Amino acid sequence: MIGAGNLGTNLATAIHKSGYQIVQVFSRTSESARKLAKKTNALYTSSLDEIYPYADLYILALPDDAVLGFLKSKKLNNFFMVHTSGSLPVSVFKPFSNKFGVFYPLQTFSKNKILNFTDIPVCIEGNDKRTESDLMKIAKNISRNVMVLSSEKRKQAHLAAVFACNFTNHMYTIADEILSRKNISFDLIRPLIQETSEKVKLMKPALAQTGPALRKDKQILSAHMKMLAKDENYKKIYSFVSKSILSKTK
Amino acid sequence: MIGAGNLGTNLATAIHKSGYQIVQVFSRTSESARKLAKKTNALYTSSLDEIYPYADLYILALPDDAVLGFLKSKKLNNFFMVHTSGSLPVSVFKPFSNKFGVFYPLQTFSKNKILNFTDIPVCIEGNDKRTESDLMKIAKNISRNVMVLSSEKRKQAHLAAVFACNFTNHMYTIADEILSRKNISFDLIRPLIQETSEKVKLMKPALAQTGPALRKDKQILSAHMKMLAKDENYKKIYSFVSKSILSKTK
Repeated sequence: MIGAGNLGTNLATAIHKSGYQIVQVFSRTSESARKLAKKTNALYTSSLDEIYPYADLYILALPDDAVLGFLKSKKLNNFFMVHTSGSLPVSVFKPFSNKFGVFYPLQTFSKNKILNFTDIPVCIEGNDKRTESDLMKIAKNISRNVMVLSSEKRKQAHLAAVFACNFTNHMYTIADEILSRKNISFDLIRPLIQETSEKVKLMKPALAQTGPALRKDKQILSAHMKMLAKDENYKKIYSFVSKSILSKTK
Repeated sequence: MIGAGNLGTNLATAIHKSGYQIVQVFSRTSESARKLAKKTNALYTSSLDEIYPYADLYILALPDDAVLGFLKSKKLNNFFMVHTSGSLPVSVFKPFSNKFGVFYPLQTFSKNKILNFTDIPVCIEGNDKRTESDLMKIAKNISRNVMVLSSEKRKQAHLAAVFACNFTNHMYTIADEILSRKNISFDLIRPLIQETSEKVKLMKPALAQTGPALRKDKQILSAHMKMLAKDENYKKIYSFVSKSILSKTK
């Protein structure tokens, strides 16, 4: 396992639990490597030179811009390698190997919350059918939600995920800040957050939309803009998201 | 019950189930009034003149801009009245009554999904202590999560709710659209949406943040902006939300 960040930690733990052996964890941060190695009963190193050269599979759970740097600095020629990125094309490996692919679990991970992979969608891609079937076998061992997805579609899925997860979480953050300023507990809106995500289990999100922008309630929209007076970023977000909601109403 | 929209329908159903009697449902749309009346074993009318004048409590579940219009057109002088708005001050009733308040369930409602009120926060406010205690009694009969909240704080809670719910749902909508265009099922990101909301049960949303903006991954940020080329609104949302996330990183 190359990388011991949020995704690496969760993925290595799931792979370890499924019965596969994590031979070694590599991370530039020795402490991260050590911690994850302990969790997965593996060896660890923070030195490129000490990476074990006989593993069956090298999983590069690295930030996008670190993947190419890693491939260039560490010649793992013709080793079976995958990356875990939503956006990097599978072809990034072409100059370095002839058996490679992608192993992209579409989920939000934090080191301090280890997730069960059973229902996590794992999008795989291989440089050929044989590699794809090898990856399918591994993926199915940790999740029952595995699919082959092309680099082009995976990129789109990643963009969608940024809106549905990263941006959604930032909406929660802004809400938390608005409440904190007035000494109102975040607990007040927790049931609302849960129900908002529950609703889209049953209906298309466009049909679940509610609120002042959808109702074209211009009085509230302008009152809210005034309340955000000092928050330039939040005001812009409020204004453009409202405008986008309005543009979808009849 | 004055109004038979998303909130009125859910609230009247909860009140009815709790054992109180909904005497009558009023809605300008006769069909909406009839449907909700049927659900709650009540009479119904779409004529202002036929509103029953001897009810113990009049709940105005109307859009903000309709509340004042209703109060002016229908003289319910000195009747016990509440509205259900997040933003309207309690004082809106002052010229019309001397017993009035607010009954604001902080949740997202749709007519076709009737919610259990047990855990829904109900924010109440009364024009005096006696009224507040009357409202507290009613609210506690349908929810175990009732609190007195001033008009000023309620307004802030409503603004926070717009971000945490309405804007979040729009993020889901954009994600759905991005996926649909490439014939990718929305199911692919449902587990992500669920986990994103699960995470903030345990941690502050600022600590749950992940994604390219947090990682300052400028390569992905600019690639995503290019992918959104034709969607002016989405590009602006992407850019300003990312900027806001970036502004919070060290």
